[in-house]
Amino acid sequence: MEPKAQVSITYCTQYRWLLRAAWLAQELLTTFEEELGEVALRPGTGGVFEIRVNDALIWSRKEEGRFPEAKEVKQRVRDQVAPDRSLGHSDR
Amino acid sequence: MEPKAQVSITYCTQYRWLLRAAWLAQELLTTFEEELGEVALRPGTGGVFEIRVNDALIWSRKEEGRFPEAKEVKQRVRDQVAPDRSLGHSDR
Repeated sequence: MEPKAQVSITYCTQYRWLLRAAWLAQELLTTFEEELGEVALRPGTGGVFEIRVNDALIWSRKEEGRFPEAKEVKQRVRDQVAPDRSLGHSDR
Repeated sequence: MEPKAQVSITYCTQYRWLLRAAWLAQELLTTFEEELGEVALRPGTGGVFEIRVNDALIWSRKEEGRFPEAKEVKQRVRDQVAPDRSLGHSDR
């Protein structure tokens, strides 16, 4: 069995994005309860908001110019950890 | 500079302790914003609720027979990552 995927969410403490990061962590842990080994919340600075799956960057606020919707993050995590899985209404 | 401390909270998905774990993660990240490199939420089973600092177990629900108060967790994390620091009202 492969080791379970590790997700990290690095958020800017200066902009107080912890609550947003913690919300997305709970969304991911609820949706991918079986697939994820952990979701780590990591304090950062300078306006950072980055989500990684096994160190692969799947969302950067600086690159995208905005925060993700929960469904966007779920789709990208799914593509990494369970590519054959349908997310139901989060796929539409 | 020493690497920042890593905290993990392993919670039982069967008992749905994610919300409780996520709450404590946010308490710790708010109180120890400078000292912690991450707080990781880890799904587990079998009634597990364990908190570790750099792999040292600082709370086990099975050993203690109950969940911790936030202040108890903060005191034990403080003892590991910033032993000289006062926690104000959380120390009383």
